[in-house]
Amino acid sequence: MRTKTCGELNINSAGQEVVVAGWVQTRRNLGKIVFLDVRDYSGMVQVVCVPNDLGVDYDLLKDVHSEYVVEIKGLVNKRGAKNINSELPTGEIEVLAKGFKILAKAEALPLDLNDEKIGLDVHLDNLPLTLRSEKYRALFKIQAEIVEAFREFLRKEKFTEFQCPKIVGDSTEGGSNVFEIKYFGTKAFLAQSPQFYKQIMVGVFERVFSVGNVYRAEEHATTRHLNEYTSLDLEMGMIKDHTDIMNLEVDFLQYLLDHLDKTVARELKLWNYERPELPKEAPVFKLREVQQLIKKETGVDHTKEPDLEPSEEKWICEYAKKKFKSDFVFVTHYPTVKRPMYTYPDEVDPEFTKSFDMLFRGVEVTTGGQRINNYEQLVGNIEKWGLKPEKFQFYLEAFKYGMPPEGGLAIGLERLTARLLGIDNIKYATLFPRDLNRIDLQISPPEYKQKKD
Amino acid sequence: MRTKTCGELNINSAGQEVVVAGWVQTRRNLGKIVFLDVRDYSGMVQVVCVPNDLGVDYDLLKDVHSEYVVEIKGLVNKRGAKNINSELPTGEIEVLAKGFKILAKAEALPLDLNDEKIGLDVHLDNLPLTLRSEKYRALFKIQAEIVEAFREFLRKEKFTEFQCPKIVGDSTEGGSNVFEIKYFGTKAFLAQSPQFYKQIMVGVFERVFSVGNVYRAEEHATTRHLNEYTSLDLEMGMIKDHTDIMNLEVDFLQYLLDHLDKTVARELKLWNYERPELPKEAPVFKLREVQQLIKKETGVDHTKEPDLEPSEEKWICEYAKKKFKSDFVFVTHYPTVKRPMYTYPDEVDPEFTKSFDMLFRGVEVTTGGQRINNYEQLVGNIEKWGLKPEKFQFYLEAFKYGMPPEGGLAIGLERLTARLLGIDNIKYATLFPRDLNRIDLQISPPEYKQKKD
Repeated sequence: MRTKTCGELNINSAGQEVVVAGWVQTRRNLGKIVFLDVRDYSGMVQVVCVPNDLGVDYDLLKDVHSEYVVEIKGLVNKRGAKNINSELPTGEIEVLAKGFKILAKAEALPLDLNDEKIGLDVHLDNLPLTLRSEKYRALFKIQAEIVEAFREFLRKEKFTEFQCPKIVGDSTEGGSNVFEIKYFGTKAFLAQSPQFYKQIMVGVFERVFSVGNVYRAEEHATTRHLNEYTSLDLEMGMIKDHTDIMNLEVDFLQYLLDHLDKTVARELKLWNYERPELPKEAPVFKLREVQQLIKKETGVDHTKEPDLEPSEEKWICEYAKKKFKSDFVFVTHYPTVKRPMYTYPDEVDPEFTKSFDMLFRGVEVTTGGQRINNYEQLVGNIEKWGLKPEKFQFYLEAFKYGMPPEGGLAIGLERLTARLLGIDNIKYATLFPRDLNRIDLQISPPEYKQKKD
Repeated sequence: MRTKTCGELNINSAGQEVVVAGWVQTRRNLGKIVFLDVRDYSGMVQVVCVPNDLGVDYDLLKDVHSEYVVEIKGLVNKRGAKNINSELPTGEIEVLAKGFKILAKAEALPLDLNDEKIGLDVHLDNLPLTLRSEKYRALFKIQAEIVEAFREFLRKEKFTEFQCPKIVGDSTEGGSNVFEIKYFGTKAFLAQSPQFYKQIMVGVFERVFSVGNVYRAEEHATTRHLNEYTSLDLEMGMIKDHTDIMNLEVDFLQYLLDHLDKTVARELKLWNYERPELPKEAPVFKLREVQQLIKKETGVDHTKEPDLEPSEEKWICEYAKKKFKSDFVFVTHYPTVKRPMYTYPDEVDPEFTKSFDMLFRGVEVTTGGQRINNYEQLVGNIEKWGLKPEKFQFYLEAFKYGMPPEGGLAIGLERLTARLLGIDNIKYATLFPRDLNRIDLQISPPEYKQKKD
């Protein structure tokens, strides 16, 4: 069994006899000498197999290629000055193999893990393999740290985490894009968000958060939609208005960017990461202001539209970057009629809401706002939206028995990851993406459907 | 707006003018003096309203009862020695109200939140309210810390977290207890566990964990089953055998018990928590040994049965408690035919597996073991189990390209919580439990079904 992990070896280990184990990342031959880069959970180390070293079985070594799992007994050796690899944390040393064991074989790889030009479908069809490449290992390390930063920040702010159910009795937000489940002779649905539950939980803990899957049965395949994604949700009571939530998000984003620099600097570098700019005062525009700006600039009059088009989201982001040195921009005051029934109307102009989207490098990654906390007002709105209050009986109970002014937000984890790393198609930033055509493997080709029958 | 949270007030705050805000936990009248216990996310403080204090509007105060949300301006006052409440962190002071505002009203409560005899259905029908009681707030604070301890421990051990999809193309483990989803003209299912994905991820990060919902379409309603629950999953490579996983679990449990003492001591006390006993060497029995013990002790011969009955699980737990001073006991070597196709057979006696259950105070809370990591052996087993390897093409890719000896475990969060706190019915330890008869509200009464049509 291994005595040391690859990543813990360094110049101080020189001269030690060790056993390391891991996956062969790459194999290089130099004459009869074989170099193996071996990786485990902690890092990577170079192993050198020299023919006249008696412990190494060269017949075994012959077949070894990328993704073989090997165990190596050897001597940690200080590298010569010109062989030092400053890119690699263990780059000052190497392991001189004296014994060699294969723990698991790998078939010949169907693709080159370092090939940057693998198409999306090939990449996704082969995720158990393609995720092992250095870049994708880095990507999902970064994603894990985004989630950790979200929790760490909110725990520091005394938010309580809760586990949210995903099977619901009705569609949460209205609308038809919900997945239906067969539930013991009746119907149930997959939750589009933890919205109702996080609001209920404000009554319990005042400040809550939840990280979990949410579901949208969107029938369109785009580079920014998924049918199942991870939502970072928070909700808090005792707010002045939606700006408290926006300010909290800015604080979180600062915390996140610092956290990533501290924990995954090496991984970020692999993606040519540029730390986003985020001024203390992040730019904020009302929807109508954005539309006026666009009209003035381009002549296109969308000042009566209820939302921004994707190209307009890009436009305002570029504008904010140029004018305010900010990669993040808040757009507030979306029309009341286009937001869910729980959205808080602005007292000054009730046709617009105290809601916001946060756009990041051209794409919306957060939706949030203040919610209606008054019971009668909420029941009134449910009716106004053409819905039946008795269907919301459980949810409404939270408001019947004392709910302070409150609000919250939801961040799409995969979108945030993609924007941070400059990834165009969100599916690359999703561990196992589900869409119209794919659950792990492609499901649309007719031959698959035949197989199902 | 509030200037201080309830929980941050202490003897050093005496003499300060503050504004606090929160929910009225209890109201007591003493002659004309009104005492309010006010809680927010940080804790609770006593507010005293004295009639001759001019700032308090006594007409408003008249209606105020539990769960009203109020904002109080007042003076922090040191309590007299005989009024000090040592049970309450803020028990040395109180707030003398000088101004009073209602932020949200509460209707008359339909039940007494401190009533310990509320039936299960009434409790669950009214969760948005009943979760606000001190005991249930404590319970779900504790649960949040269990999850945090799991992650903290595993991050310390260099495990990488991943976000696991829950929509799957086929039932993960075989068996019929899966929920079916309508998925764009085809069928999909809700995952029974992240099993396949965490194994795939061992190939990527060697050590991984995931916290998320899992689904069992069990048609029986018991005190220990749920249709949706939270699974704490880990999986790791480079193991010797299943005992590495068991040892890791013992280390985690020690870490967890220490973490709970440090973070939620007050909350645990509300549940009359007794810290479980866990010796350095936790007791381990093979299934057949347990059955032999039971036969010897009770005369009942179940030595050919493939599993323990619930009463036998209780029996071995009591035995381990008496004989080894342990509240935890591992049972290993379940029969190969009764475990999933990926379970590792014991080389010495392949009719039994290198799998284990961990029982805690009478109930199984963990299942784990070593998995088959050899590609050919795994394909062979899939066929032996009467399944089709081509259906497992995606999963199998992880094994085709190099998988070391590996294993893992899954802990049921709600079961663990219930056993720690001595809660008989798991539904009390589940935030919003789903079962045969309930998604938030009861779904079986015919009048509900009529409403759906």
